[in-house]
Amino acid sequence: MALNTNLTTGRPTFVTHLECSMTGERYEADMLHGLSRVGRPLLVRYDLEGVGAALSKEALTSRETDLWRWRELLPVRHTSDVVSLGEIETPLVPIPKSGGSPNVLVKDEGRLPTGSFKARGLVMAVSMAKALGVTKIAMPTNGNAGAALAAYASRVGIETIIFCPDDTPEINVREVAAQGGRVYRVNGLIDDCGAIVGKGAAEGRWFDFSTLKEPYRIEGKKTMGLELAAQFGWKLPDAIFYPTGGGTGLIGMWKAFDELEALGWIGPERPRMFAVQASGCAPIVRAFEAGEEHAERWEDAATVAAGIRVPRAVGDFLILRAVRASGGRAVAVGDPAILKAVEDCARRDGLLLCPEGGATLAAYREALRTGLVDEDERVVLFNCATGLKYPLPEAPQTLDRFAEIDLGAL
Amino acid sequence: MALNTNLTTGRPTFVTHLECSMTGERYEADMLHGLSRVGRPLLVRYDLEGVGAALSKEALTSRETDLWRWRELLPVRHTSDVVSLGEIETPLVPIPKSGGSPNVLVKDEGRLPTGSFKARGLVMAVSMAKALGVTKIAMPTNGNAGAALAAYASRVGIETIIFCPDDTPEINVREVAAQGGRVYRVNGLIDDCGAIVGKGAAEGRWFDFSTLKEPYRIEGKKTMGLELAAQFGWKLPDAIFYPTGGGTGLIGMWKAFDELEALGWIGPERPRMFAVQASGCAPIVRAFEAGEEHAERWEDAATVAAGIRVPRAVGDFLILRAVRASGGRAVAVGDPAILKAVEDCARRDGLLLCPEGGATLAAYREALRTGLVDEDERVVLFNCATGLKYPLPEAPQTLDRFAEIDLGAL
Repeated sequence: MALNTNLTTGRPTFVTHLECSMTGERYEADMLHGLSRVGRPLLVRYDLEGVGAALSKEALTSRETDLWRWRELLPVRHTSDVVSLGEIETPLVPIPKSGGSPNVLVKDEGRLPTGSFKARGLVMAVSMAKALGVTKIAMPTNGNAGAALAAYASRVGIETIIFCPDDTPEINVREVAAQGGRVYRVNGLIDDCGAIVGKGAAEGRWFDFSTLKEPYRIEGKKTMGLELAAQFGWKLPDAIFYPTGGGTGLIGMWKAFDELEALGWIGPERPRMFAVQASGCAPIVRAFEAGEEHAERWEDAATVAAGIRVPRAVGDFLILRAVRASGGRAVAVGDPAILKAVEDCARRDGLLLCPEGGATLAAYREALRTGLVDEDERVVLFNCATGLKYPLPEAPQTLDRFAEIDLGAL
Repeated sequence: MALNTNLTTGRPTFVTHLECSMTGERYEADMLHGLSRVGRPLLVRYDLEGVGAALSKEALTSRETDLWRWRELLPVRHTSDVVSLGEIETPLVPIPKSGGSPNVLVKDEGRLPTGSFKARGLVMAVSMAKALGVTKIAMPTNGNAGAALAAYASRVGIETIIFCPDDTPEINVREVAAQGGRVYRVNGLIDDCGAIVGKGAAEGRWFDFSTLKEPYRIEGKKTMGLELAAQFGWKLPDAIFYPTGGGTGLIGMWKAFDELEALGWIGPERPRMFAVQASGCAPIVRAFEAGEEHAERWEDAATVAAGIRVPRAVGDFLILRAVRASGGRAVAVGDPAILKAVEDCARRDGLLLCPEGGATLAAYREALRTGLVDEDERVVLFNCATGLKYPLPEAPQTLDRFAEIDLGAL
């Protein structure tokens, strides 16, 4: 039983083909794909004229607001392949006190299944894996992606093997296991984990679900851009601060905006995209500042924000292109500023960010200070996971109920 | 800036008065109230004819779906008093494998601000406290209510002091503190904490926010019933399994159904209400089985489901009346069944319940087995908080990236 008609209504689908994000080479739809022949991500292409003829903005607006309302712009062709744990539209929460402006809104992605925005990508990728007959999946993860993969895959009976750095937040490791995934801690970083996954995939042991190495996670992540457009009344915000590891979401949003413009639902204006990294792992920032098209691996990566500790991104050139085309920037913030932002936002605005979300707030504050953004501008910060997944500072006293408590002293 | 028009649109409000839930004695609206003169909860009453004239089902349906869409049935009179962290409509997630029926749906309340359904009650109570000029609040809590209170109160600059049993989940204690509340662990249970709060309130030190001791948490919690009615297309489910500590939500839903019937939006049919408790703390079950109208304190209360470890409920008679009037039951489940339900649901359906949510699943399974519910019936289980707040079992191996890993053995 499902009461949400987005999950049950049959519909035409509009995928025409896939193409290499680097060369434009064309690949057939409805077949299992990894990277393109030149080792770069594949992008899904749609018959957008067909979408425009089938779906009006008004029809869309009358639907339930979850991720599947966008079905004509998504790759899953059959409702029977849709695996869902309730992918709600995430709210925009003002943080006037810690943000320093009434115009800054946090898109709180921690409300999604498994508590992070990884659910958007993985619900799509797992649905497509099911459609295409995949039975065993492996993935390197810094934590949240593995948790989302395990949850969705277990739900449809696909076996999962997850490799994560050995200092991945304990809760992530445990939730993968609780949700039916097999999880291994690896003495290394996420690209070391990726190498193991790649080796096994080359040996035919499993399908490789690394960021951007299969074409559908980006389609799920692009719903962040679609949602923002709808939530802002089809006039995009002035700037978006996005915590950038693999960058799938930033690339996905950029793709979403292009598709919406092709449909005539938004104009050519774009938000300035700010790719936010940590000072201890900032390959995209370094490449941005050097004017490079690709980003070299960042050695000895270290930051409290594990989700953006990604030394090398296979979609580096796509991130850099989007940031530059938007008039935005790649910016780095230090761990102390990240932790301070998390603390301030919780204490003053009641919203507990994850460290990566804290990074976007820290970057926004710095941008306000240096004039990169103005406090009158409408800005969205992405909080990519619930802050409940991360260690919080210890709290104080124990009272004794039998003692004479001096209530006046509390 | 708020894009959600539910938060910005002015509206008529319809509160006429409050009344004692035991004696029916009338109390004025727009004044600060605690319990009634006979020490029982106050209920908010509305001019429902006025609501019916002002709001059609169709107008409601066209609004954003968050909690504030129900504003004509809520006590906050001025938008300027609305404190919000994004109270989205929570999704209904099928759990066909662990539930044993395609017709059982989990209402996943862990998606609310601060990760629990306590947000519904506290957002309303804090908004009203703001409206009525309260500046300092104290509350006893098993964890999640304190976290929600701290978040909302900090947001509007109200001081909070939270008392919790000393074995309250560590994450709850820490999130209260992180969100700007002062938190004290007490060597005792929640009613011991409540005694401290009551003493301080009597001395005029703070306002008492204990469950049902102020009239507005129940109004927030009743939105669970309002939402269910809308999500089920104005035909309520056959049965609801609700984890019952203080019982505010169960009482609130029952009130919501009556108000919706008075509006003519639903008929006289009601779901069978199952009040779910833990075997180690089951005062309502004991009273239900003994045919009593009130429930005596449960001594030596102990259960893994801390949220329903409530030895004595001030609204006991309201819970028992609703359960009996509905043709439902009060049922108890043991900790092993609770933990097994949490484990199965995560591993097989990919949904991580909190222990109290696990209790509802355990109770549903038992009810299926004993014929209290039929697998064809449409049943809702309340998962009151995200499972991420609770300790998960340890996960396995560490691999060494430098070793020769035998991928075939994974």
